[in-house]
Parts: sequence; structure tokens; C-alpha cells
Amino acid sequence: MAVYTEVADEALRAFLAEYELGELVAYRGIAEGVENSNYALRTTAGDFILTLYERRVDPRELPYFLGLMEHLAARGIPCPTPVKGRDGRALRALAGRPAAICTFLPGVWPRRVRPEHCAPLGAALAALHAAGEGFEPVRENALGPRGWPPLLEACRARGDEVREGLVAELDAALSAILRDWPAPGALPRGHIHADLFPDNVFFLDGPDGKPRVSGLIDFYFACTDLLAYDIAVCLNAWCFETDLSFNVTKARALLSAYQATRPLTATERAALPVLCRGAAIRFLLTRLYDWTHTPPGALVTRKDPLEYLRRLRFHAEARGPSAYGL
Amino acid sequence: MAVYTEVADEALRAFLAEYELGELVAYRGIAEGVENSNYALRTTAGDFILTLYERRVDPRELPYFLGLMEHLAARGIPCPTPVKGRDGRALRALAGRPAAICTFLPGVWPRRVRPEHCAPLGAALAALHAAGEGFEPVRENALGPRGWPPLLEACRARGDEVREGLVAELDAALSAILRDWPAPGALPRGHIHADLFPDNVFFLDGPDGKPRVSGLIDFYFACTDLLAYDIAVCLNAWCFETDLSFNVTKARALLSAYQATRPLTATERAALPVLCRGAAIRFLLTRLYDWTHTPPGALVTRKDPLEYLRRLRFHAEARGPSAYGL
Repeated sequence: MAVYTEVADEALRAFLAEYELGELVAYRGIAEGVENSNYALRTTAGDFILTLYERRVDPRELPYFLGLMEHLAARGIPCPTPVKGRDGRALRALAGRPAAICTFLPGVWPRRVRPEHCAPLGAALAALHAAGEGFEPVRENALGPRGWPPLLEACRARGDEVREGLVAELDAALSAILRDWPAPGALPRGHIHADLFPDNVFFLDGPDGKPRVSGLIDFYFACTDLLAYDIAVCLNAWCFETDLSFNVTKARALLSAYQATRPLTATERAALPVLCRGAAIRFLLTRLYDWTHTPPGALVTRKDPLEYLRRLRFHAEARGPSAYGL
Repeated sequence: MAVYTEVADEALRAFLAEYELGELVAYRGIAEGVENSNYALRTTAGDFILTLYERRVDPRELPYFLGLMEHLAARGIPCPTPVKGRDGRALRALAGRPAAICTFLPGVWPRRVRPEHCAPLGAALAALHAAGEGFEPVRENALGPRGWPPLLEACRARGDEVREGLVAELDAALSAILRDWPAPGALPRGHIHADLFPDNVFFLDGPDGKPRVSGLIDFYFACTDLLAYDIAVCLNAWCFETDLSFNVTKARALLSAYQATRPLTATERAALPVLCRGAAIRFLLTRLYDWTHTPPGALVTRKDPLEYLRRLRFHAEARGPSAYGL
């Protein structure tokens, strides 16, 4: 749940005075986003989102995230644009937290993904990858393959409380994933979102009544990694039904639209199953970590790790890219 | 915590189609408000709040709440105005819940109450009471004096887990409050808000730089009761510092501004201490009930009941209305 930090009125006013944003008109906490405190901010200059970065975000990484958003927005990606203060800086402090104001994006994230969402999603992801070119900073993926073994270790003692035999199954799955993972240099790299779940993608209906992407948000897992891994995250996040069956129509729509901008190489296509296994184990492990490390009374929604075990098993049985409609 | 109910996109679209509000532009969950799910809704017609009424609200009482808001708004009170659909109805259903759209109000609720907030608050409360005249429906205060003994009974078994001796102290305090409570007919009655805490009052700075009330929200405890009891709720909610010392400057500002519109009768002034004790025990008892009945893992912020024990003790020692600056 969001809004961890309350900001005193005077502090907010003093903070806003550092910008050319006019007078405060409204200020409401937003119930979405798990990691940070987000406020819908309205001033006489328009609508904005004020984000206070909470403990899970390393302040040293914020220049990468904000710089990437600025770079992408300048190239036409509908992502939040950091707003600079009178001193030219976008990142400052409020209520003892790093804080930034970004532009507000219209749209609604899909509570229920339909196949019509998946083509615009694929196109937006390819555009994001293309627009990221030329952004020089590099951020390693802290939740990439090198991050997974220590996460599993941290879950070893209590993982089987979630499900009998889970840790052994994950040991075997992770070994196989790391063994099959693409060699360095084998696949195109670039800046990826790495967390492009439905609640991070806003849509609005176009004049034809079909959904169009109006916003991509929450770049706080973005990093420099395999572009096709971002696709694998989306296949996990967008193409399974609530009963965890895989909807290949959605996958095909996503992949076709992506490839209309950037065709996958043969190596990328062949790697899709292991990239999907990797993405599944990444979310499984972080959810399992949260599950086994969250005190019972904490005000946090714990997401079920086992949903990702079922996804992982699906990908482990995929014979090749045809499992995803390719 | 807010946002209990997620609404599927198609259901939202179908719901909106029942209104003359144009096209959906944005839709975000609001992290404020404990009882209901609230969404900031933007359409091509403007900004609105969509509320889904959750279990604590009795659907049979919604016509009273919505009717009162409409009545007050028509008389210039800056409260949410229910928006009617094409069929003339403001109350309908969405995602299996009663639901209504109201107008959006600008402003910011004060995270830290300053004395300058209390005069505009008092004036707004008096205006609310005056504007309520002529609204015919009646809603008994379910959390008024008759509701307190059963609440205390429900807390009897576990109340002392919060503090040793608490139940005995509350037994004695409640008996005294009920003994001293104004006789029926002794004080002016009308429609009261009954929950006018700082997070239910929005302010904006006026041209003189001083805060002005821009919105009064959350009328879902409103009822027909003693007007001065609403003042007592505000004295409890606005005039204690975080260390629970009583700030008589704030109280005087609130009461003076209130009396500029509606002077209190001598009987009302004399009753202020017992009304304040009543308001304190009302919030103490509901918090204590929530504290002792909330499962440890529930995603709800439990508010400390003991803050109201200290307020109750303050009021019990008040010799008369002079304790509040009168």
C-alpha cells in the first residue's frame, strides 16, 4: 500500500516554492504503487505526481531513473517527465526523503487485460527500447540472474512454509535457468523497464474505440539488461489468465506488435523460454522473500508467490518460441 | 486504508455511460478515507470522485447522506455534490457495491493544524449547521449516547489488554456522561457532520495568505443530533496538540468564528464540557472496538484509543465553558 510519508503543509509549500509551478490547488495521496509514497498534486500550472522515495529505493540510483525518464520522454515515450525546480534540479528532499515531481499522465490501467491491450503494449515496449538508445548511464539489474541465488538463500529457511518442497523445486529450476541463460553478448542489450505490469501501463480509447497506451509509469526497477528479458516480463505479467492458463493470442499480439518495430533475432526467439523462466523466478523469489520476511501485522499486501510457480512450470515445459505464438 | 474494491474497465465504462460526463480520461485510487473505496475520476467533463460504499455503510442510509450533501451544496456549502445520471439518480451500483459520483473539491487537508485553521473551520461548521435547516429527512446518530453502552460492552472482554483498568475507568466515565447529558429538547438540534476531523476539511490560501475552507467531505457519519455536539467533536479533533495538551487559542478561534454566525445559547455553553466528554468517549470506544476486534494481519491502520482517554480526562476536569476559551 502506498503513502507511507505524510508531508506537513508548510514543508509542502516550501518545497513547491522551489519550482515554477504556481499555487497549490489540491493534493491527494494515491493508493497505487507499492514502493513509494505518491501524491496527485494540482497547482495553478496543472497536474503532477509528487513521489517521495521510500526505503526500498537507493537514493544513489535516482539520477539513473529520473535521467532515463527524461531521456525517454524527450523522445516521445509517454512516461512521467521529471519537473525541474528553479535551480535546474529535479531531485530534492521533502520530509526527510528524496522527492521529485513528475508530469501527470492520463489513462487507466487495465484491471482485466484483454487481447486488445497486448498489441499496443508490445508496440510501446519496442518504442521504449528504441528510445532508450543513446542514454549513456548504466544500471545493472540488481534483480537479474546474479541476484537470484542470494534471494533464494534468504528464503531457504522458511520457503517450504509456503509450500512443501518449494525450495527444492526452486533449487532445481534456478540451476537450470542459470545453466541455460544466454551468454554475455549473445542478445541485444539496452535500457529496460523490467517491471511493466498492467498497473504500470495506462490506456485510453482511441477514436476507433480501441485501447491505446497513454502512459508508462514506475521506472524504479529500470536497468540495463537484455531487451528480450523485458518482453519475457510482459509475457508473464500480461498473458496468463486469472486461472493461470496461458493466452497465446495475447502473447502473439504482444510479440507481433513488438516485432513490427524491432524484429527479434533468431537467438532472442530461441532464448524466449529461458528468459520467461528467469522472469517468472525473479517475481517468484521477490514475492517469496516478502512473504517470508513480512511481519504478520505489517500494512503491506503480500502477493502470492505460488502464482509464479505455475508460470515457471509453464515456461519450463515450453519446447521453443512456438509456445508463445512465434 | 482505502481502495478495497477494484472495478473492471468494462464495468467502469458501462457505469460512466449512464452519466453525461463524456469520456474517461484518468482514474486513480485515493489512499485517503477509511470506510469506502474512493477514486479520483477525470473525464472530458472535469474532475470527480467515484465512491464505492463498503460494508460499514448501510446502503439504506445512503439516500440521507447524498440528499444532505445535495441540500448543503445547493446552499453554498463547499461539500461534494452528488452527480446524477441520465435517469436522474445519483446512487447506483458498481462492482456489486452501491456507488456514486460526486464533484471534486480543491484544497489540501492540514497535516498539522495551526490556529489560523480554526476560525475558518468554526465559520464553516456554523454555515453547515445553518444550511442544514429545511432538510427534512432524519437520521439518528448511531454513534450517539445510546450507542455507547453496547460499544463498551463489546470491548469489555479485551479492553484491559490495551491498558490495565481501562474498562473500569470507561464504565465510570460513561455513567457520568450519560447522567450529565443534556435532556431532550434542551439544546438546538439539526444536521451535523459528526466526524469533522482535519482530513475531512480542505483548505486553500486566500489572497491574504490565510487559509480558507475549500471543501468539507465525508458525510457518512452525518446525522440529526445536537448542533453543539458537532462543535465538541471539532474541539477534540482540532484543538489538542500532538502531545495531547489542549490549545485554548485554537478553541477560542473555532468558537468565536462559529458564534459569529450562530451564538451558542447559555445552555449550550454550559453543556460544552459534557458534550466534549461524549465526543471523546465516542471516538475512544470505536477505536477501542477496532483495536480489540481487528485480526492482527488485517490491512487496516488501527488508531490508538488511548489518545482519546487523555482527551476524556482533560474534559472531565473542565470546570465549565471557560476551559474552552469561552
